[in-house]
Amino acid sequence: MPGGDDPIGDLVALLSRLPGIGERTATRLAHHVLASDPDYARALGSSLGSIHERVVRCATCANFCAGPRCAICRDERRDGKLLCVVARVPDLTAIEKSGSFRGRYHVLHGLLAPLDGVGPEQLPLDALVARVRESEIREVVVATPLSVEGEATALYLAQVLRANDVRVSRIASGIPHGGELEYADQVTVGRAFEGRREL
Amino acid sequence: MPGGDDPIGDLVALLSRLPGIGERTATRLAHHVLASDPDYARALGSSLGSIHERVVRCATCANFCAGPRCAICRDERRDGKLLCVVARVPDLTAIEKSGSFRGRYHVLHGLLAPLDGVGPEQLPLDALVARVRESEIREVVVATPLSVEGEATALYLAQVLRANDVRVSRIASGIPHGGELEYADQVTVGRAFEGRREL
Repeated sequence: MPGGDDPIGDLVALLSRLPGIGERTATRLAHHVLASDPDYARALGSSLGSIHERVVRCATCANFCAGPRCAICRDERRDGKLLCVVARVPDLTAIEKSGSFRGRYHVLHGLLAPLDGVGPEQLPLDALVARVRESEIREVVVATPLSVEGEATALYLAQVLRANDVRVSRIASGIPHGGELEYADQVTVGRAFEGRREL
Repeated sequence: MPGGDDPIGDLVALLSRLPGIGERTATRLAHHVLASDPDYARALGSSLGSIHERVVRCATCANFCAGPRCAICRDERRDGKLLCVVARVPDLTAIEKSGSFRGRYHVLHGLLAPLDGVGPEQLPLDALVARVRESEIREVVVATPLSVEGEATALYLAQVLRANDVRVSRIASGIPHGGELEYADQVTVGRAFEGRREL
């Protein structure tokens, strides 16, 4: 609110709306910015204020990008027969960092959540089904989170995609790398047994 | 950097320069802003980008304010005989919240730090001495931090101010409210004994 009577208070109120930032941290951040180079404050403000205008969704996979199509969709070396469905862009980034997938992606930007009023119509599932139908995709790996909503979305996707002569798979659930069985929850231990593989 | 090829990466880099915000948290914040209302991003960006222009230092005490003089300096009910010297505006805010001081303030926006090249010339000490000389101030309470630099600054202030027929005092150092002697450091315990008062 430029021109307000309490510019620091206004900034603290806006910063406090960020996740994990309480009033105390917001106050510390505001005073840090005030004590820093004004050019830094302007660069950060401009970057934040224009981020929605500068970031668009890839026309093919809905990944965030600066142009009409993202770098992964433009990359001819990616395997066009493999498609990975994720809920959010940070999940895609985590998969890319792991180097364990060389196909392409489809970002839902959400999960089915009937209790919050998010049904199949609210997610871009038609675009996903059309993409699977019109392309050479042979396997869809559903990498939605292992939460209730992520699992429900995975089951729903399996139903709507199976009719299209495509294999639908789900990422494994089990004990994380380096994890102790002693500290794992019961559901995770159960899944680790269900998903056991021959050695 | 508007127009850049990696707007999210640019924003993450700028956010990572804030204190206590690593790359992971910066990435989470950037994606949170992208998932929120664009109006919020614009309001936050505009508030941050213009904070240096909208916040000025009070002409009398150097407190942050939107006008030429801060609300505390304008408040006629404050005791003009008492002046409290603080290093930073958040310290002033903490004192105001405690309700334990009803005089006026002087903000140094720094502390003496010879090793970092901050000598008496780099701090607005002339303005402080002139203010004490020209006003009805009878006591200057030095509320700089109880750190090495805060103590050095307090001793220096006592020297330069004492010539002006004014009492110079220092806030007490000791065990914090609710604190256990067992967990206090030796210097704090020593100060608590030095500063003991009759009951």
